Amino acid sequence: MKIGIIGATGMTGKALYNEAINRGHDVTGFVRNETRGKDVLGSDAQLIVEDAFAITGTQLDQFDVVIDAFANHTEPEQNLDVLTHLIHQTRHHDVRMFFILGAGPLLQEDGSYVYDFLKTLPDAAAWVDEPRYGVTELQVLLSTRDVNWTAISAQNEYTEGPKTEYVLGKDHLMHASDGKSHVTSGNLAGAVMDEIEQPQFKMARFTVSDK
Amino acid sequence: MKIGIIGATGMTGKALYNEAINRGHDVTGFVRNETRGKDVLGSDAQLIVEDAFAITGTQLDQFDVVIDAFANHTEPEQNLDVLTHLIHQTRHHDVRMFFILGAGPLLQEDGSYVYDFLKTLPDAAAWVDEPRYGVTELQVLLSTRDVNWTAISAQNEYTEGPKTEYVLGKDHLMHASDGKSHVTSGNLAGAVMDEIEQPQFKMARFTVSDK
Repeated sequence: MKIGIIGATGMTGKALYNEAINRGHDVTGFVRNETRGKDVLGSDAQLIVEDAFAITGTQLDQFDVVIDAFANHTEPEQNLDVLTHLIHQTRHHDVRMFFILGAGPLLQEDGSYVYDFLKTLPDAAAWVDEPRYGVTELQVLLSTRDVNWTAISAQNEYTEGPKTEYVLGKDHLMHASDGKSHVTSGNLAGAVMDEIEQPQFKMARFTVSDK
Repeated sequence: MKIGIIGATGMTGKALYNEAINRGHDVTGFVRNETRGKDVLGSDAQLIVEDAFAITGTQLDQFDVVIDAFANHTEPEQNLDVLTHLIHQTRHHDVRMFFILGAGPLLQEDGSYVYDFLKTLPDAAAWVDEPRYGVTELQVLLSTRDVNWTAISAQNEYTEGPKTEYVLGKDHLMHASDGKSHVTSGNLAGAVMDEIEQPQFKMARFTVSDK
């Protein structure tokens, strides 16, 4: 399939790029800086150098699937803004849009957001804006009926690491066999590519955990 | 004050424009079509001819307050998209942003959205997308901490009419002295201009009802 990845040089984007290439897909990375794109993804990588907010729906129509892996940890409001820009650009288009969310918009056992727990932690002020905007990202997606979207949430610990074994979930926080909530970038990328190849979660959010 | 109105030729925009002019403010209407702008607002109206999605934060910095009165009833997803575009453009800017919402994102007595009731009505499918997107608009605003925003919700019946007497509320649906939920465009415009001149609801949503 022809796959575009926005934010291809980030931790998630890179893992998705490599997983998609390994599976034989035709992959293009959207990057802001060509030199960094080549450094991270290889000198033979297909790149489109473009600011995320300049990407148009017409430009995305060439792809079967476009993954929004844009992630700004210091200005997390930009993650929401890129998502809403891409939604606006792809309303009534055919391209399938895939969004990467954090654990904040997953649900706890009582049905409240994981964000509602995270914000009670002592040092939350320093980093809680990212899961807070993640909740809004999910709310925007859930209101979207005219884009062919799918979203995946990571787990509380989301770190760079290889594809090993992973388990899918739907809307609730998961726990790996060690009792903790974690997933590697490699396992998340594996789950995303499985879903791209064999869609189960159309217009829905799901999640993945390390086994 | 220097006030910009986006969607100035619509029912709300026109009422806001006239109320602001009557109070002696320096008002500019953002319109898509200059001829229609002059027809609706008068040949001496100050106009900026611009697509809402092309408006930039830098362009809005010349105003003290900008009111988003853009309202597309046939493609209500565009109301959300204009709101998110304006939020993105005005993050960390000084301009005060005022958003006009419907009754859908008001609360019922039990704390659920008015939208949750509206969607149960027999003919809801034909028109419920607009209050549905209205809920998402409020959710986006409530997650926004870096824009100086205020929002006002109308009531269930929101019709063109003069400024008479009006009563303010906060987040709940209101009922006029006849027991029904309604507000005229003139009364809503009066409440908006009162709030612009004497701010009480910073980073908050409030509502207004006919007396």
